[in-house]
Amino acid sequence: MTLKASNLALVPFVSVDDMMRLVRNIGIDVFMADLAREIEADFARWELFDKTPRVGSHSDVGVIELMPTSDGTFYGFKYVNGHPKNMKEGLQTVTAFGVLSNVYTGYPVLFSEMTVLTALRTGAMSAVATKYLARKDAKTMAMIGNGAQSEFQCLAIKAVCGISDIRLYDIDPAATEKCAKNLAGHGFSITKCTTPEDAIEGADVITVATADKDVQTILTDNMVGAGVHINAIGGDCPGKTELHRDIVARANIFVEYPPQTRIEGEIQQMPADHPVTELWQVITGAQKGRASADEVTLFDGVGFAIEDFSALRYVHAKIKDTPFYVDIDLVADPDDPRDLFGMIKRAG
Amino acid sequence: MTLKASNLALVPFVSVDDMMRLVRNIGIDVFMADLAREIEADFARWELFDKTPRVGSHSDVGVIELMPTSDGTFYGFKYVNGHPKNMKEGLQTVTAFGVLSNVYTGYPVLFSEMTVLTALRTGAMSAVATKYLARKDAKTMAMIGNGAQSEFQCLAIKAVCGISDIRLYDIDPAATEKCAKNLAGHGFSITKCTTPEDAIEGADVITVATADKDVQTILTDNMVGAGVHINAIGGDCPGKTELHRDIVARANIFVEYPPQTRIEGEIQQMPADHPVTELWQVITGAQKGRASADEVTLFDGVGFAIEDFSALRYVHAKIKDTPFYVDIDLVADPDDPRDLFGMIKRAG
Repeated sequence: MTLKASNLALVPFVSVDDMMRLVRNIGIDVFMADLAREIEADFARWELFDKTPRVGSHSDVGVIELMPTSDGTFYGFKYVNGHPKNMKEGLQTVTAFGVLSNVYTGYPVLFSEMTVLTALRTGAMSAVATKYLARKDAKTMAMIGNGAQSEFQCLAIKAVCGISDIRLYDIDPAATEKCAKNLAGHGFSITKCTTPEDAIEGADVITVATADKDVQTILTDNMVGAGVHINAIGGDCPGKTELHRDIVARANIFVEYPPQTRIEGEIQQMPADHPVTELWQVITGAQKGRASADEVTLFDGVGFAIEDFSALRYVHAKIKDTPFYVDIDLVADPDDPRDLFGMIKRAG
Repeated sequence: MTLKASNLALVPFVSVDDMMRLVRNIGIDVFMADLAREIEADFARWELFDKTPRVGSHSDVGVIELMPTSDGTFYGFKYVNGHPKNMKEGLQTVTAFGVLSNVYTGYPVLFSEMTVLTALRTGAMSAVATKYLARKDAKTMAMIGNGAQSEFQCLAIKAVCGISDIRLYDIDPAATEKCAKNLAGHGFSITKCTTPEDAIEGADVITVATADKDVQTILTDNMVGAGVHINAIGGDCPGKTELHRDIVARANIFVEYPPQTRIEGEIQQMPADHPVTELWQVITGAQKGRASADEVTLFDGVGFAIEDFSALRYVHAKIKDTPFYVDIDLVADPDDPRDLFGMIKRAG
């Protein structure tokens, strides 16, 4: 008799509203620092993970992707779409949700919104890259592209790297206004800039997060000075790049998972054997990060499944004994596992 | 100001309980006949679909898989685990859930349990294969393996093919008792058998659905007479088969999606170029089904993403204006799509 779902059948669901309240409850700075630490820890045990490039379904207007991974104890995947045209129609360019499961039973243990969580983990990921690759004396970040991702990049970089001087630029001044307003009261010194040249003036770190599905050259080579670290976040699908090829050509390039980045990242502009370093190897110490104070380092970030896995595990741990989830009846659990049909019959 | 989720942010969720009530409300016979028709219609437009073998993550004790597909208008995927050891621990061998999305926006439009729904569609799929491949005068089915899938196979074959004489066999007599009891009152003539030989005596259709993760030879060659149609349902992952190689060797074999079946189906026992016919081509008339009344036909069913897609679309259409779902707040929908962080700030 299983009209009421048993405990086994129940899966915690974190809605968008729950996620926002969880973030506010933990505090955005702590959340970002925690999340960066989780990602760093998972990157340090990179070789343990089941890795596969994301599984995409492309249409004329966008892409829907599944991003699975597993560390042998937990399995996680994210569903994420990318529809650049959505913004003009009042919709999110990127929406996402994800699931964490127990590898031993195959049963899901968490179902969560990930539109907000992806924004958070993308910020935390750039912050981890910046921590390892930027000059130690870096103080100022230029934030190019002031859309939905921009505040998260700024908040993470402050929480993880202590960088609080931010120079904002967007082709749409309204976006810059929105970003500046949202960051007010979070301990930043903000400069609103009207040209990309102005924004990167004196910046030690340049983070680029724009959304058009196009080959863009928001930064050209002569704009980028010696010693800068660049996080290129918005070039994240085939045919979409943000940096001029010459910048990419002279930078020391760091990536998440090369088979995916070569298709989706800035390095899609380069030959298939263009040298890159895997960031996880910098974190473990197996490879060198920045070679000198003068070189340009580039984190060609496209987002990888392990980052989502880190985020899902973090949320799974944090919601315990909080009101920030509801249990949903997702898994059929008849008293006798062979009696699935009997359960339906008796449900009347 | 988006503390309350907007309509765009809400996704209908069909729980296990909702699914059971939906099935009872529509009626199991109508549900099976409808579902078979949906699958048949989608197989008839097979070439339209984005097809990819399922994406699996294997461990010592089981597998977790994602099965995506799209017809260009909708995108669907199913999460499904297969853990044969689960039954002994009081858990389902297979649990599943799935999502249907709008390809144009990338937004999910349905989140549904699929443990029950997979059982239903697996029955409906076998019934479609049997309709096209069994002899037209087929009257009796042997059901080998009387576990969680068995009732669904029997109910679908009756609803679609009018076959109501069922001969049950399982190595565990308690499973046979359970199946017979559950099918009582559904218009079947049931014979409980104590050996596989007895069960297939006089059967025109033999459906095999066992669950051990092993190479089984539940049926040997001399047991299978001329003119029989076999649905082999339980051999559905690498290293797991149910039929003796000699049966497979002399049968006229029909499959869903060859790249997947060659890895997971009964034909994993055969050379990689062993001839098979794709069932969808029999449905469209491009290929011949059964060649003679004497030949043995084999549907080597492993389950394919398009069947889940058909089932999700059917449920999506059927829940409209019913109480068999709840809306969940899965997609972040700020008033300004660029103002995701502002939404979090204001959520307090």
